[in-house]
Amino acid sequence: MSLRIQCTVIDCTDALRVGTFWADLLGRPLGGPEDDGVYWIEPGENLPELLFIPVPEAKSVKNRLHIDLRPDDQAAEVERALALGAGHVDIGQGTQTWAVLADPEGNEFCILRALRPDES
Amino acid sequence: MSLRIQCTVIDCTDALRVGTFWADLLGRPLGGPEDDGVYWIEPGENLPELLFIPVPEAKSVKNRLHIDLRPDDQAAEVERALALGAGHVDIGQGTQTWAVLADPEGNEFCILRALRPDES
Repeated sequence: MSLRIQCTVIDCTDALRVGTFWADLLGRPLGGPEDDGVYWIEPGENLPELLFIPVPEAKSVKNRLHIDLRPDDQAAEVERALALGAGHVDIGQGTQTWAVLADPEGNEFCILRALRPDES
Repeated sequence: MSLRIQCTVIDCTDALRVGTFWADLLGRPLGGPEDDGVYWIEPGENLPELLFIPVPEAKSVKNRLHIDLRPDDQAAEVERALALGAGHVDIGQGTQTWAVLADPEGNEFCILRALRPDES
């Protein structure tokens, strides 16, 4: 038995737009496009490969899968995400230690609190 | 700027059921539950952390994010996934080199073709 996670795939109306947002957010280059309009971010340390694929349908409901991001400085990274085109979203989370945001096509993601020095 | 992917989060009606499926599929132990009913699979080589969180709503549309898995033996891994409770799904993919399946709550995932020896 051998099965490993190759990548996380994100359906996009505009794969370049969404891919650019995530590449800028993660500080990684965006690859692509392939002939089929697919863009990607290569895997790296603590970063599985991300694929951005064009689909005809728009996002319609809260995503069933989402990505949690770990910052060194939560407030600074939230501000940076907002400046890159993210928005705050309310999915009924109430007051939490994490910030719930969405990318330019509404894909929810969280920026968690920074870890304390004694955490890993 | 420092922001890394901590985990991929999967909303579940039955987090134990979905988490057990993925743990068995990936050959990893399932952790949990926390007091809030969350289960998890710890990160590992080529495996970001997965979190399974209970939510009140059921899955309603094709997921906007999904996971692609790389097998050593595609046919064997598809059979194994089906035996664990996955099902084939048709999202209009036509004939492809990858198999489109869904976990017990309908979360789509793909089992890609095996890599050739000259690929990495």
